[in-house]
Amino acid sequence: MDFSSKLLERAVNEMSQLPGIGKRTALRLVLHLLRQPMEQTKALSEALQFMRNDVKFCKSCNNISDVELCEICSNPNRNEEIICVVEDIRDVMAIENTSSYKGLYHVLGGKISPMDGIGPHELNIEPLVNKVKEGKVKELIFALSSTMEGDTTNFYIYKQIQDYNVYTSTIARGISVGDELEYADEITLGRSIVNRVPFESSLKL
Amino acid sequence: MDFSSKLLERAVNEMSQLPGIGKRTALRLVLHLLRQPMEQTKALSEALQFMRNDVKFCKSCNNISDVELCEICSNPNRNEEIICVVEDIRDVMAIENTSSYKGLYHVLGGKISPMDGIGPHELNIEPLVNKVKEGKVKELIFALSSTMEGDTTNFYIYKQIQDYNVYTSTIARGISVGDELEYADEITLGRSIVNRVPFESSLKL
Repeated sequence: MDFSSKLLERAVNEMSQLPGIGKRTALRLVLHLLRQPMEQTKALSEALQFMRNDVKFCKSCNNISDVELCEICSNPNRNEEIICVVEDIRDVMAIENTSSYKGLYHVLGGKISPMDGIGPHELNIEPLVNKVKEGKVKELIFALSSTMEGDTTNFYIYKQIQDYNVYTSTIARGISVGDELEYADEITLGRSIVNRVPFESSLKL
Repeated sequence: MDFSSKLLERAVNEMSQLPGIGKRTALRLVLHLLRQPMEQTKALSEALQFMRNDVKFCKSCNNISDVELCEICSNPNRNEEIICVVEDIRDVMAIENTSSYKGLYHVLGGKISPMDGIGPHELNIEPLVNKVKEGKVKELIFALSSTMEGDTTNFYIYKQIQDYNVYTSTIARGISVGDELEYADEITLGRSIVNRVPFESSLKL
């Protein structure tokens, strides 16, 4: 792509570093900014820089926060005895949106993936194990993606804490609400039959 | 969407102002920046601000440029007697990529579209008419999109300049290279038959 302006070229190059944004999309976005008032570009770049420089991670659960201890961890109405283990802060947001969980979270920051060079020590696992060792945690809910990496991570953590008095669970795998049975994969369908639930409890949600 | 951090929320909101970027995509992009070194976010926001504040528009053709007169307009090897009228600077880049045009350009900055509140006076039409009036232009090539708005704009400009001694043309409409004839729409196919070209000239490109 040939640019008539170095400033434009640099902006397009930087924008196309973002995942899923190619050169053409970047050009479209940058030209959009050029047609909008200057304030919009200023607001965008300031918001990004402030966010990157000043955002904190909760010292207890590793969730993104503006303060040392995040809103969820510092909320006295939350049940401190249940911890839901998730990969990413997006998973915290997704579970919070369901309004069906009142315990705390622990954000690992990824899952064990030797192929990508991510071992247990790259993740926020040790603080979780320490929390369990302190004896305050009654239940650990594994809510990682149902992939080989997710299962490996679950198992690694499970091995570290199995000698302590803590109940471990994973979120239920099964047919999504609204899905057609005939298109479901065999493993999911199989698990959803083995882990079937009383019909009355399915009426509640 | 519930955010645990105001800084994150602000960055996501600003990012989702861009066209085609929803809240979820914006969150994904912003979290990506958070995982990358601080320098990347700094480079992106600086590039955007420098671009927005310092980029110039060529005083002759309205193309984006770092200097007063763009590279194309100031190139002595270009034929100043032919002007290609385009909507947008992206069209300039697209035509330049074909390496088949050696004249100058004139960027209108849009097309006449009463539905969107864009009349002739919102566009960069007057300077083009003045160029024609000065008598230096021999040919005007209309290279706008083949839509009702594009045709309206072509016709509006044509009416302004028809009394002056200038030859006007439009880019050829026809079947795209590689397209199957049976899927072409009737208007395009009809025009491509009416405006057929000698077989020998089709061998050149």
